[in-house]
Amino acid sequence: MKLRFDYNNMMADVIGEHGIDPSDVNRDASAIGAAYDDVMANLGKGWQEWTELPYMNYSDLDSLIARMNDIRSKASAFVVLGIGGSALGPISVVQALLNMRLNELPSSALRAAGLPKLYIEDNIDPERMHELLELLDLKTTYFNVITKSGETSETLAQFLVLYDLMKKAVGAEEAKKHFIATTTMGKGTLYRLAEKEGFVTYGIPAGVGGRFSVLSNVGLVPFAAMGIDVKKLLAGAKEMSEACRTADVRKNPALMTAYLQCKAMEKGANISVMMPYADSLKYMSDFYCQIWAESLGKATDKKGNTVHAGQTPAKALGVTDQHSQVQLYTEGPFDKVITMIAVEKFRRDVLIPSDPDIDACDFLKGHTMGELLNHERVATEYALRKAGRMNFTIVLPEVNEETVGELLAYYMYETAFAGAYLGVDTFNQPGVEEGKKATFAMLGRKGYEDKLAEVRSAVKKDEYYI
Amino acid sequence: MKLRFDYNNMMADVIGEHGIDPSDVNRDASAIGAAYDDVMANLGKGWQEWTELPYMNYSDLDSLIARMNDIRSKASAFVVLGIGGSALGPISVVQALLNMRLNELPSSALRAAGLPKLYIEDNIDPERMHELLELLDLKTTYFNVITKSGETSETLAQFLVLYDLMKKAVGAEEAKKHFIATTTMGKGTLYRLAEKEGFVTYGIPAGVGGRFSVLSNVGLVPFAAMGIDVKKLLAGAKEMSEACRTADVRKNPALMTAYLQCKAMEKGANISVMMPYADSLKYMSDFYCQIWAESLGKATDKKGNTVHAGQTPAKALGVTDQHSQVQLYTEGPFDKVITMIAVEKFRRDVLIPSDPDIDACDFLKGHTMGELLNHERVATEYALRKAGRMNFTIVLPEVNEETVGELLAYYMYETAFAGAYLGVDTFNQPGVEEGKKATFAMLGRKGYEDKLAEVRSAVKKDEYYI
Repeated sequence: MKLRFDYNNMMADVIGEHGIDPSDVNRDASAIGAAYDDVMANLGKGWQEWTELPYMNYSDLDSLIARMNDIRSKASAFVVLGIGGSALGPISVVQALLNMRLNELPSSALRAAGLPKLYIEDNIDPERMHELLELLDLKTTYFNVITKSGETSETLAQFLVLYDLMKKAVGAEEAKKHFIATTTMGKGTLYRLAEKEGFVTYGIPAGVGGRFSVLSNVGLVPFAAMGIDVKKLLAGAKEMSEACRTADVRKNPALMTAYLQCKAMEKGANISVMMPYADSLKYMSDFYCQIWAESLGKATDKKGNTVHAGQTPAKALGVTDQHSQVQLYTEGPFDKVITMIAVEKFRRDVLIPSDPDIDACDFLKGHTMGELLNHERVATEYALRKAGRMNFTIVLPEVNEETVGELLAYYMYETAFAGAYLGVDTFNQPGVEEGKKATFAMLGRKGYEDKLAEVRSAVKKDEYYI
Repeated sequence: MKLRFDYNNMMADVIGEHGIDPSDVNRDASAIGAAYDDVMANLGKGWQEWTELPYMNYSDLDSLIARMNDIRSKASAFVVLGIGGSALGPISVVQALLNMRLNELPSSALRAAGLPKLYIEDNIDPERMHELLELLDLKTTYFNVITKSGETSETLAQFLVLYDLMKKAVGAEEAKKHFIATTTMGKGTLYRLAEKEGFVTYGIPAGVGGRFSVLSNVGLVPFAAMGIDVKKLLAGAKEMSEACRTADVRKNPALMTAYLQCKAMEKGANISVMMPYADSLKYMSDFYCQIWAESLGKATDKKGNTVHAGQTPAKALGVTDQHSQVQLYTEGPFDKVITMIAVEKFRRDVLIPSDPDIDACDFLKGHTMGELLNHERVATEYALRKAGRMNFTIVLPEVNEETVGELLAYYMYETAFAGAYLGVDTFNQPGVEEGKKATFAMLGRKGYEDKLAEVRSAVKKDEYYI
């Protein structure tokens, strides 16, 4: 395991009364053990099929990689259509491993790098769609349509728009070659469509839910298309999986931090801030926000008791949000845990030049921007500690395929352990059904007439408008 | 006022027991009145100089506009160096009013539009800086360095790097013409530097704090440089200011929603989610997150009582986060208020084509993406209401200079009223000093030797590392 975890500042013997009593870890040993056993008993089973993805036979990926290499050699742009779990994993990984300004590089630089532009379109905003269409040369654009159920309205809407345009641009026969479907094999609208049209199709295993799917074909197809070493990514995830399968909580980062977060919730910390100190890791927060919110935010536990469980994740970015959120974090309510992600060594650094005429900048002399950033991280950590605020740090020696794979696997195991500890169903999302039904009703879908009447009957009062 | 506010779903008589008792508004009339009076008594005074910005003589802006038109005609890129309040206002406005993919447009399209590329660099990540430098043609790049105090370490570090490179690229004499400073006139390191080098310099009024500065030269300079109609933006802000100066809480959107948020906090809603349903308004959440967190997150009230006040803002984006956060919002703890921002009419829309062969997509037939998005917003609002979750909606008829100006002014007044209601100092940020001092200490700045010793003496335990 290349990642390191420092949870000193979670503990009462380090930060004081607002921390967690170190003896709690022993006192709760059986509950921790039960959560561990729950996850371990289900490795590879039911909705925990995601645990086996890093253990796949990597040579099975060779044909996928070869096909994606071929597409990459022909593509000016690769566009992912997906939302939620079909987008957040891919977004977090490509931000970490590709040039963050890839799409702005001149064509010559892209050609030299052998890379297409990449777009991950996870919303149905029509203005955003127009602005995308103005940039694409459809003749050399490839689309990867991702929806596990094959029924996601937003993704199907995007697909219908773009497939129609592609057929007009290159003709029906050629258009088929520009679409790749990633979905559940054998069922759902996208699968049937892909079959009918003859799209290349990749499957998503039944027991891999959207928010746990980044290491399935959901992520592997776009990563391979962009030349990311997917085997190293999986190897990193495998290494972290081993650490997260350790029974000793003091050696298992996912189990320990899941436990500490749950204890923090008991102490009133209903907010969990994810704060990477690196722009390349900015969207890891988005990945975390989904997996943490949607997995733990549940009205009932598995026994059917009403619990309204969950901790609200919030995104922050170091050092930027020191100038936005840290005032609140150090002085506001004791209601949150702040997780910092540190990068020890940036892939490239910048020396800050000195100006002999400016005394006030003298303290920056001889330092790099990376040093300044990391000093600020440690300083913020220190200020939070001094203010008695719970925080912990995940350290990446460097950002690369292995460490990113480790981080993703850590998040997934941490979430699974936290869900098991809280006793909720980590892998369902019943709370989104009502909104989907109401949408279908308003769109006039057959069978939703009663729902439409219900939605329309929700009275509003004129006096509550300004 | 073009914006409309619908707070039906905040009220107990609409959403049930977890809402706010409608009779509270009368019961708290004197506290609401006191908060109103506090803000009104200080219009244009002390730290409330921001309230007068929309009332400036707009013809005073003509020379700024002319100068920025000239720069725009010469620039291939306009780069803002700033962090926190010097960046978040500009980011939120340009995302709303410019092409969201401006920097990816081919040079020919940019030339046709008469626009440079725009970069707002609000972090010191060295990898991000390297990737920026690969894109810039320094000969035609203009930098706007923004720091109110003139002392912000991050911004000075960026400046030192880029000014050094510019001097090497175009020579010392020419380099001076590529930098514009926005800072407090007459004092601070940036001001002294700008004087010495002969940069064009724009002032920030003493009583306008960073997070309330978007309508000062902090925003006006880059907006004018990008061809945004700053007079219309200010006119929108002025129109909203009038509404927010209304004494009747039932007609004053900022006063009413500030009050409702404070009441919600009393009921345990320590989280405030900002959820625009439009990609163009995505970064309004970032603006809101700063102004709300840094203004209200305070350890003590104005009387010196320890209060640890504050509500933690969280960013979400509709419809995307329906697939990430809404499960938690509908089923998790009753600990948040969700503010949706609706856009009635998108500037451009996209019709979803029908596919006669796909029955399952039939319900999308004849609808536009904008309609789908807005139906989903109303459906989510309905689902939240049905689950008894407090939420309210801000409606923009369309996104344009006036409505964006209105929204910004609304946020500022809402924050001022909330701070006054809570009794905290809305305009200071003492909680960030500790981190700054610790940073200076670690960088070896003179005078911080004791702080360095203090930081180094903070013991950590080996057992709390994994």
